[in-house]
Amino acid sequence: MNKNQSTAQESPILGKQSVNLKKPVYIIDSASIVGKKEGEGPLGELFDLVGEDDMFGSQSWEEAESTLQKEALGTALRKAGWKQEDVRFLFAGDLLGQEIATSFGLMDFELPLFGLYGACSTCGLSITLASLVISGGFAEKAACVTSSHFASAEKEFRFPLGYGNQRPLSATWTVTGSGAFVLAADKGGKARAKITGLTPGKIVDYGLKDSMNMGACMAPAAASTIEQHLKDFGRKPDYYDKIITGDLGTVGQTVLIDLLTKKGIDISGQHMDCGIEIFDAKEQDTHAGGSGCGCSAVTLSAYVLKMLEEGVWKHVLFAPTGALLSKTSFNEGQNVPGIAHAVVLESPE
Amino acid sequence: MNKNQSTAQESPILGKQSVNLKKPVYIIDSASIVGKKEGEGPLGELFDLVGEDDMFGSQSWEEAESTLQKEALGTALRKAGWKQEDVRFLFAGDLLGQEIATSFGLMDFELPLFGLYGACSTCGLSITLASLVISGGFAEKAACVTSSHFASAEKEFRFPLGYGNQRPLSATWTVTGSGAFVLAADKGGKARAKITGLTPGKIVDYGLKDSMNMGACMAPAAASTIEQHLKDFGRKPDYYDKIITGDLGTVGQTVLIDLLTKKGIDISGQHMDCGIEIFDAKEQDTHAGGSGCGCSAVTLSAYVLKMLEEGVWKHVLFAPTGALLSKTSFNEGQNVPGIAHAVVLESPE
Repeated sequence: MNKNQSTAQESPILGKQSVNLKKPVYIIDSASIVGKKEGEGPLGELFDLVGEDDMFGSQSWEEAESTLQKEALGTALRKAGWKQEDVRFLFAGDLLGQEIATSFGLMDFELPLFGLYGACSTCGLSITLASLVISGGFAEKAACVTSSHFASAEKEFRFPLGYGNQRPLSATWTVTGSGAFVLAADKGGKARAKITGLTPGKIVDYGLKDSMNMGACMAPAAASTIEQHLKDFGRKPDYYDKIITGDLGTVGQTVLIDLLTKKGIDISGQHMDCGIEIFDAKEQDTHAGGSGCGCSAVTLSAYVLKMLEEGVWKHVLFAPTGALLSKTSFNEGQNVPGIAHAVVLESPE
Repeated sequence: MNKNQSTAQESPILGKQSVNLKKPVYIIDSASIVGKKEGEGPLGELFDLVGEDDMFGSQSWEEAESTLQKEALGTALRKAGWKQEDVRFLFAGDLLGQEIATSFGLMDFELPLFGLYGACSTCGLSITLASLVISGGFAEKAACVTSSHFASAEKEFRFPLGYGNQRPLSATWTVTGSGAFVLAADKGGKARAKITGLTPGKIVDYGLKDSMNMGACMAPAAASTIEQHLKDFGRKPDYYDKIITGDLGTVGQTVLIDLLTKKGIDISGQHMDCGIEIFDAKEQDTHAGGSGCGCSAVTLSAYVLKMLEEGVWKHVLFAPTGALLSKTSFNEGQNVPGIAHAVVLESPE
C-alpha cells in the first residue's frame, strides 16, 4: 500500500489501470430530467424535472430523448450560473445506433463534442474523459451528458412496444431520463463533489448471451473494475461509504457480490445499485430494476451528489456498467460482454 | 497572431476551441488492413495487409470488421515492438450500431477501452483524446483503432446488398479497412509523426438530408473546424503542406473549397481528401470517392504518415469528417449534420 501511495505522489498513473488525479476536478453542478414513471419512483422528488408524459413535446421517441439531453444540459448550466460558451468541450453519448439522441440533442449548443459510446456506462466514461482533459490543463470547464429513453431503447434493442412481449423477471426497465454534469478545474464558490481518481474498465465477457438478463452479463465487468480499483489504490471496500453500480439490478447485484466474495472482497456492506434505487420494483412492475445510460446519470445527479454535497457520504466509488450488444450482434448469436468505468467521488468539503 | 502565440506559451488552451500541445505526442507506429477493392486502388501497395476477400475468415460482415480491428491493432503493436500490456488505454470506435465491430474486435486485448463515436471522424476523435490523455501525463502509451466495412455499412445504413440499388454519382463507397495507431509520450527510437495541436469540432448542420451525398453534408463541418483551427493558431493555409479531410469525395471537396473561399480562406493548393485518394473513381466505379471511418484511418497510416516520416511533408492538418445520421434519424426525416476533428501532424524530425 505504501509503495502505491509513494508512486501516486510522483505520477498520476497508478497500478495496472488507474489514474490518481493529483489535480482534482470538481462537479460544479448537475441536472436530472426524467419521465413520468421515474418521477413516481422512490427518488421522484429529487429530480430537477419530471415530464408529464414521455414525449416531452416531441414527435418521436428519439426526438424526445434528444429533448431530454438538451433540457438536462441547459438546466445544469443554469444551475451553475454558466453561459453555454463557458464550456470548452462536451463529452456525451447515448444508447441509440449512431448516437442520434446526442447528435440532435446537443447540436444547438454549438460546442466541440467528443462523442462517446459505453452503453449504460457512458456516465462514468464521460466523467472519466472530461476529468482527464480538465486535470491535464486542456480545458477549464467541460460538460458531460447522457440519456436513455424506455421507448427508444425497446425499439432499438428488443420488440416493438405494441407487440406487448412478456418480460422475464431478470429483465430491467430502461430509464427515461438524462443527466448532465458541469465540471471545472476550480471549485469556485460551490461544488457538488470532487473527482480524485479513475479506473477505466476493460471489456469482460463471461459468455452470457441473454439480453433479458443484462445484470448478470454486466456484473463480471463491474467485479473486474472494482477489484482492480481497490488493488491499484491500495484500498479496502470500507474506505468507501458507498460502492455504486449503474444498472445491475437485483440479479446482477447478487452476481457481483458473489464474484467479489470469491476473490476475498466483501462489498455487501457498501454496495448500492442505481437500478435498484430508482424504481420500487414491486409497485412499479420493473422486475430486476432500472437500466440505461440515464439510470446511473439521473441517480448520480439527484441522489448520490446530494449525499456527497451534504457530507453524509465522504467517499463514493461510482462504477456504472454497460452491456455491449446490438440487435445485430444478438441476432448473430454473439455474447453480451460488459464494461464498467469507475470514478472516485468525494465530498467537496 | 502574437497574442495567440504568447497565450500558447502559458497554457495549452488556445483560441476558441483548440489545444496547443506543449508536450507533443508521438505516433510511434501504425498499421492498415484493407479489403480486396482497396488493395486494387492507387494506394494498394502501401497497405500492410490486403485481404483476399472481404470476409477475412469470418462468418458475418460484422465479425469480419471486428477481425480487421484485431489484426490492425495486432500489426501496429508488432511493428512498434510493443507488448499488448504496454498499452495503457485503447481509444476506439466504428460506424455500426452500438459499436459492435470495436467491442468484439478489441475485447481479447484485455485493455481499458474508451469507446468513441464520431462517425467517419473517429480516427481524428480517437487520436485527439489519446493525445490529450498522454500529453496530460495520464498514460505513457495508448492505442487508437477504427474501422469500416463496405457490406456491414450498407446493411447498417442503406439497402440490402442483394437488392442491388442504383447509387447516384454523389454517393461514396464505404472503405473496407481498419487503421491502428500506437501513440507515446516519448519518441524513443523512432516515430512516424509528432502531434502538436488539436481542434476538436462541433456539430454543423446545414439542413441537408441526402444520405447519398454525404460529402456535401459533411463539408460545412470541415469548413468550420479548418477555419477555426487557422484562426486559433494564427496560421494561414500555406503553413501546411497538406490540409487533409477524410471522406468528402469530389462533391464535398468542391463544397468545402467554396465555403472557405467565401470566408477569404483559399485551401485549394493544400487540400487533399482521403476518399479521393483511395480509389480510382472511374476505374473502380466508386462514384464520388471512398468513405467510412476506415477510409481516413488507412490512408493516414499507409500514405500520410509515410510522407511525414520521410520528411516530404513537414506539417499536415488532418481533419476527418463524420456524418451524424442513423437509419432511424434518416427515416424520421432528420437532417444529416456533420462533425470534423482536426489534428496537427508534423514530421517527426
